[in-house]
Amino acid sequence: MCQLLGMNCNVPTDIVFSFTGFAHRGGRTDTHHDGWGIAFFEGRGVRHFVDHQAAIASPIAELIKRYPIKSTNVIAHIRKATQGSIALENCHPFVRELWGRYWVFAHNGDLKEFAPQLSGPFRPVGTTDSELAFCWLMQNLHAQFGDVAPALPALRAALERLVPQVAAHGTFNMMLSDGTALFTHCSTKLSYIVRQYPFAAAHLADEDLSVDFSEVTTPNDRVAIIVTEPLTKNETWIPFAPGELKLFVDGMPQS
Amino acid sequence: MCQLLGMNCNVPTDIVFSFTGFAHRGGRTDTHHDGWGIAFFEGRGVRHFVDHQAAIASPIAELIKRYPIKSTNVIAHIRKATQGSIALENCHPFVRELWGRYWVFAHNGDLKEFAPQLSGPFRPVGTTDSELAFCWLMQNLHAQFGDVAPALPALRAALERLVPQVAAHGTFNMMLSDGTALFTHCSTKLSYIVRQYPFAAAHLADEDLSVDFSEVTTPNDRVAIIVTEPLTKNETWIPFAPGELKLFVDGMPQS
Repeated sequence: MCQLLGMNCNVPTDIVFSFTGFAHRGGRTDTHHDGWGIAFFEGRGVRHFVDHQAAIASPIAELIKRYPIKSTNVIAHIRKATQGSIALENCHPFVRELWGRYWVFAHNGDLKEFAPQLSGPFRPVGTTDSELAFCWLMQNLHAQFGDVAPALPALRAALERLVPQVAAHGTFNMMLSDGTALFTHCSTKLSYIVRQYPFAAAHLADEDLSVDFSEVTTPNDRVAIIVTEPLTKNETWIPFAPGELKLFVDGMPQS
Repeated sequence: MCQLLGMNCNVPTDIVFSFTGFAHRGGRTDTHHDGWGIAFFEGRGVRHFVDHQAAIASPIAELIKRYPIKSTNVIAHIRKATQGSIALENCHPFVRELWGRYWVFAHNGDLKEFAPQLSGPFRPVGTTDSELAFCWLMQNLHAQFGDVAPALPALRAALERLVPQVAAHGTFNMMLSDGTALFTHCSTKLSYIVRQYPFAAAHLADEDLSVDFSEVTTPNDRVAIIVTEPLTKNETWIPFAPGELKLFVDGMPQS
């Protein structure tokens, strides 16, 4: 099983604090050492970093811990290979373009007997069940809406119909974003927290590091962090229910 | 106008030496300070770095100069904006997936009255003429060959038909790779060199840096470097003819 980390905010925010704790699970405080990756939206653009080294040994992970890239939507993943060899093309997150937007996807879990027929141009490059599921989702969204991007409620309804069809094949904790919203689905394990005014201090569970968010934020900032295992010890994380698909916009879960 | 750098090799090779000279043109020895990017194939996977800071000011460029990522196909670009604002989504190289392979594309030049109708899923995310041309090429390759990748000679013949249709609109120096071969097209300015046994020393034109390739290679290595302006002073670079489309495989131009 892998681990997922997502961030969705109302203003561009850096993920250095959360990524620092998360990256330690890539080979130090946990056994997820078969690669890692992170994608940051900046406007419509994406910075995409993948590495098939363990996150704790990766010079690129080291750079990201030091270099505060600001983003409103981030998806990160550390990998423990279940399907697909340890290779760069099997590292999450995966990126595709649809409707003139980049889409970023990462998955934690394992799918059994999931072998849909793919038609059209969304094809896996690597050999993971995860990338296959992502291509299948993209293909079906494109088939349903054609060449014009739907409004968010229609997109959400489509994913509420499609995602359970994948999840029926096993464990499908996943994150998907086009840079305007973050879709998350929980099969077994996912928690989130919304940090907003009044901000307090947080202490990482995986490393002896604290940050006082009141010193680095404005009263208008709102940041949702979604993760496989809570990252801090002194905050209250809200667990997802199994089967729950949750949409985050501007740092808030949408009801 | 921008500048392009490509590498095609028969064994995975690092591009630290060439990229070091090239990156200096991103704001120091030349005026290309509107962003930069580089993509490395590793097997079927791609490491893709883009930044809308000048290459000389970018911590990510600094990392790449120090961290020897080994690859058989690399495309790099430094940008001087002509069309499209200075934004991450307008930085080359661009990446799309077709036939279960990532395709990487970068362009130097300026296209006039190039506004083809796009149908299907290859759409620009940013606002450059370059990304539009890339999407048009992908769309036409997909239309011609359907869902099955053609053999290299058929792909080359298709590009020999398609590329001049873009180049008719202005300057279209470009590089395109799927990780197995590197296609290059010259409208106005492109040169290449093939480094192979017996290797000699090379001295960068843009910085006081030399490398003796005989110390870091084996007799079987072969590396083609393709660039807008020759990178070294003491080697003989071969200029492309205007309108020439050249295909590199395993470090050699294919006749």
